[in-house]
Amino acid sequence: MSIEKLEQLYEGKAKRIYKTNDPNLLFVAYKDSATAFNGEKKEEITGKGRLNNEISTLIFEKLTANGIENHFVKRLSETEQLVKKVTIIPLEVVVRNVVAGSLSKRIGIEEGTEIKEPLVEFYYKDDALGDPLITEDHIALLQIATKDQVSTLKALARQVNEVLKAHFLSCDVRLIDFKLEFGLTDEGNIILADEVSPDTCRLWDIHTNEKFDKDVFRRGIGSLTDAYEVILTRLGGQKECTK
Amino acid sequence: MSIEKLEQLYEGKAKRIYKTNDPNLLFVAYKDSATAFNGEKKEEITGKGRLNNEISTLIFEKLTANGIENHFVKRLSETEQLVKKVTIIPLEVVVRNVVAGSLSKRIGIEEGTEIKEPLVEFYYKDDALGDPLITEDHIALLQIATKDQVSTLKALARQVNEVLKAHFLSCDVRLIDFKLEFGLTDEGNIILADEVSPDTCRLWDIHTNEKFDKDVFRRGIGSLTDAYEVILTRLGGQKECTK
Ligand SMILES: Nc1ncnc2c1ncn2[C@@H]1O[C@H](COP(=O)(O)OP(=O)(O)O)[C@@H](O)[C@H]1O
Ligand SMILES: Nc1ncnc2c1ncn2[C@@H]1O[C@H](COP(=O)(O)OP(=O)(O)O)[C@@H](O)[C@H]1O
Ligand SMILES: [Mg+2]
Ligand SMILES: [Mg+2]
Repeated sequence: MSIEKLEQLYEGKAKRIYKTNDPNLLFVAYKDSATAFNGEKKEEITGKGRLNNEISTLIFEKLTANGIENHFVKRLSETEQLVKKVTIIPLEVVVRNVVAGSLSKRIGIEEGTEIKEPLVEFYYKDDALGDPLITEDHIALLQIATKDQVSTLKALARQVNEVLKAHFLSCDVRLIDFKLEFGLTDEGNIILADEVSPDTCRLWDIHTNEKFDKDVFRRGIGSLTDAYEVILTRLGGQKECTK
Repeated sequence: MSIEKLEQLYEGKAKRIYKTNDPNLLFVAYKDSATAFNGEKKEEITGKGRLNNEISTLIFEKLTANGIENHFVKRLSETEQLVKKVTIIPLEVVVRNVVAGSLSKRIGIEEGTEIKEPLVEFYYKDDALGDPLITEDHIALLQIATKDQVSTLKALARQVNEVLKAHFLSCDVRLIDFKLEFGLTDEGNIILADEVSPDTCRLWDIHTNEKFDKDVFRRGIGSLTDAYEVILTRLGGQKECTK
């Protein structure tokens, strides 16, 4: 049975999700839209969808090779990929190796400060509320996930961090922080979903700390596609990183 | 040796702190200032200092009677009390029995919703940062307190809640939520400090849910002193609540 793209289920800020003729599979189409500050800053950037689709593909393949279960099935075109359908847990699971962005603003520690033990934070995925930071007790109150599921999310997030930190390092990139989304399969298993790309990671050059991620757009400090091209090249275009 | 008030050490939003001739004791003078929204809303309200000093005194005495160690030594005048000097841990420890205020805004649950298991939250006591919510991992990163100290803070906060919830209930008042500050003694023990008053608690009438706390001022819905007088009367002025 060949997979057919059926009607659109959802249009988000960065991707469109489509049904397929297989009830367990979805089409994901990466858009050229860049948004920041909960949608306040917006721009169409030709090539962004392709770059994120390619980078996310490489990263999911790396995670799969390292035994981390995820929704990725295969890349279908420049901007599309096929994924397993899950029920998304409405949490943005953030892992931080270095202080940056909102954490720096929240606790008043300078951006760039190393964090010894990787930090895992949960943000409630709710655009209307502005994706607020929440505690594990808030997660219980909101009945978003059980205590056990929260433990699983933290353990998985840390595993993803170990794999990606090492992988990026081998490509001369520092993995500063990143956001993950997880989902439940029909069997009740928690697997990694959504995307892992320079839209959802902070990625700095290992030598110069040059930024190759969405902060380039958020802060208006250069060309987003130039930055994302660097990441794509380093992840797949260089001999030493394709091994 | 009689206690003498010496030079002012600190002027906060609600109180002034003075040295005394005993290095282990401080004078606390409750001010008539009301502030809200991190100091954005301000007003002088005659009688507020006296009311908070009296109410805080009654509550600390109740906590002492129930074995909860705290800084209170004695009331000295209408607006002053003597307390043990501690090193304040820069955390606002918030206990919630019912959803209200910033929690309602953060997680989108309606004000007034009961919380089954009392919730303990930590806010970083830092006016410049706006007293942000932080997680236990942030506390570790900031080196504000050890894991053990955080556990102690949570246990103490829950004990205070049990005592105060029952006490207020016997006075026809619902204890919705409250903020505590703890400090370290020279011996390294954690004891309750600062104040416990309608400035730092949400207190609703058990039958009508009428508010008798700083929300009256924050939301401009009545006379602050009238509301605080109700609490003082119910805590100490009524036979059934002085037992
Ligand atoms: N495997 C999956 N199954 C179901 N939904 C998914 C899957 N992976 C990601 N999603 C969801 O699809 C949407 C992706 O679109 P995106 O543009 O990122 O949306 P948003 O603006 O909500 O972040 C998100 O809501 C995401 O949670
Ligand atoms: N026993 C104590 N020893 C030392 N400092 C204390 C003690 N109790 C309270 N404090 C501190 O004294 C100050 C009280 O003044 P307040 O007007 O509440 O200040 P703020 O505006 O900082 O909240 C606070 O900083 C509080 O942490
Ligand atoms: Mg998204
Ligand atoms: Mg105070």
